[in-house]
Amino acid sequence: MAEKARRNQLLFRPHFKTHQSEVIANLFRIEGITCITVSSLRMAEEFALQGWLDITVAFPVNILEIDLINKLAQNTILTLVVESEEVVTFLNLHLKNKVFVMVKIDSGYHRTGIASSNNEAIITVIKAIESSSRLSFKGFLVHSGHSYKAQGKKELEMIHQDSLTQLQNLKSNYAAAFPNLLTSIGDTPTCSIMDSFEGVNEIRPGNFVYYDATQLFIGSCQLNQVAAFMACPVVAKHPDRNELVLYGGAVHFSKDSFQHPTFGTCYGLVVEFTSTGIESIPNCFIKTISQEHGLVSVTAEYLQTKNPGDIVYVIPAHSCLTANLMKNDTWFV
Amino acid sequence: MAEKARRNQLLFRPHFKTHQSEVIANLFRIEGITCITVSSLRMAEEFALQGWLDITVAFPVNILEIDLINKLAQNTILTLVVESEEVVTFLNLHLKNKVFVMVKIDSGYHRTGIASSNNEAIITVIKAIESSSRLSFKGFLVHSGHSYKAQGKKELEMIHQDSLTQLQNLKSNYAAAFPNLLTSIGDTPTCSIMDSFEGVNEIRPGNFVYYDATQLFIGSCQLNQVAAFMACPVVAKHPDRNELVLYGGAVHFSKDSFQHPTFGTCYGLVVEFTSTGIESIPNCFIKTISQEHGLVSVTAEYLQTKNPGDIVYVIPAHSCLTANLMKNDTWFV
Repeated sequence: MAEKARRNQLLFRPHFKTHQSEVIANLFRIEGITCITVSSLRMAEEFALQGWLDITVAFPVNILEIDLINKLAQNTILTLVVESEEVVTFLNLHLKNKVFVMVKIDSGYHRTGIASSNNEAIITVIKAIESSSRLSFKGFLVHSGHSYKAQGKKELEMIHQDSLTQLQNLKSNYAAAFPNLLTSIGDTPTCSIMDSFEGVNEIRPGNFVYYDATQLFIGSCQLNQVAAFMACPVVAKHPDRNELVLYGGAVHFSKDSFQHPTFGTCYGLVVEFTSTGIESIPNCFIKTISQEHGLVSVTAEYLQTKNPGDIVYVIPAHSCLTANLMKNDTWFV
Repeated sequence: MAEKARRNQLLFRPHFKTHQSEVIANLFRIEGITCITVSSLRMAEEFALQGWLDITVAFPVNILEIDLINKLAQNTILTLVVESEEVVTFLNLHLKNKVFVMVKIDSGYHRTGIASSNNEAIITVIKAIESSSRLSFKGFLVHSGHSYKAQGKKELEMIHQDSLTQLQNLKSNYAAAFPNLLTSIGDTPTCSIMDSFEGVNEIRPGNFVYYDATQLFIGSCQLNQVAAFMACPVVAKHPDRNELVLYGGAVHFSKDSFQHPTFGTCYGLVVEFTSTGIESIPNCFIKTISQEHGLVSVTAEYLQTKNPGDIVYVIPAHSCLTANLMKNDTWFV
């Protein structure tokens, strides 16, 4: 990803919410990365302590955390994300140090942000930022999270191209007034698969450090690029319904799933490690999950190979949430 | 619940996985409770340190944790749950202290356990237990988790009656050989709503300490019995689609949902606190959840009352998973 960013002359500001790990963070340092993205001020605080000093918090400012913002802005180059005049006004009144702000643009995911065509709202926010001595307008930030719902590369390409067009339009509209205007995109599927980033200055993917079953299914990665596995002990075996019960539940995986065309709701995919790499085990997947249990649907053949106390390796549906829950128990090999 | 147990001459062994809290645990002490249920050995370890000395781990034994089992069995009355001869044989070989074991019976949930009609398998496991000097057979444990899918009280009653019949049959079959045989049931819906427990000796509900949106919807509780709320700051407001964005996502709530007849997939219900109690806010609920964001669908009227920095109170879909994630940040009021 770092190589791809260099090739496309993009700033690379990886999202650290996926791993939340000092070990993985240090791998980025080796690549010369100094700017990072996080999804909470707590995470920013943690990584600031580890010496990361240029941090974007890619989540709309929670004004109730103003004290933490002020604390962080003392010693880091802090970039916040805003989408309303009201929040900017609050920050202007309560900030003690300078922070950068990016305006969140809704490129079609419809979670947060201002529609890129809504120039009236965009100008209102920028003017509020510009009228403050503590805030510095840095540019536009989008997260095309709807790419996670893309069915195949063609649809992903359309979503990506649409985001680029929107960012290019924003650049034409605002670059005269702000020559250093920065545009930033974030999602792992488009950053992994796409090759053209015209109109984009910065990428913020995070999930790609591990990938997961959802990304595998979208086509963002190959099986041999997946780097997060849950080692789940078998605790029960039910040959009558070809099921294994794993010690691996919602307290380990969270409860995220994806829709698999043949399995239906799927919480994780079973794999094995062989001398040549990772091997997917056909028709073996986590079908339901409760607080501590994971129920794996398996083939009769696979079932015969496993007994209580054996380990089943699972690629989680969503590695970010799994890593968040397991961060104190993670082994790096 | 303690009162109901006394009235029905049931042993009350509350499940502590819901709260995992010393404060709530002490409320049980005041009621004279000394026996508890947990869902992991780690939880058992934590509560043993707090002086709880009679602990059932209501999860199939993970033989890889034998060292922790041995450690716990030194200083507590430990009850484990088994369903296979293989695991019993392993325990017999590796246990250093005496433990009690209950045989897990599948009363229809089809997650773990031996079918109550499968006497051959039941006898095999009991014989293995009885042949060991370290293991002591205590009885049968069921968890009718399918009660969570019940549509209304009638269906719940049927599930409950079916479990009772199965336990009564087990009693008739095995009470002659084991006069002190104990039968134990666990789920909060039936323990909350039902009044007859013939054939049952012990109840292990846990969720009832907080209840949640799922239990409210099943009918296990009234709104004024719910005792767990997430205080989520508003971070963005979208009047064009009647949505609020909350700082409250999968890292706070986990990602559990229930199917609401009009809302569809629902991750939580919005409430307000008034001078007279808790008031449900009609048609306001969490419709999607991502790592840190909760997207709340609201009425135009409610939207007008909230701005960034205001708090929205949410009853989680599943309080156990929310409490598990928030346990270090919980406020008791």
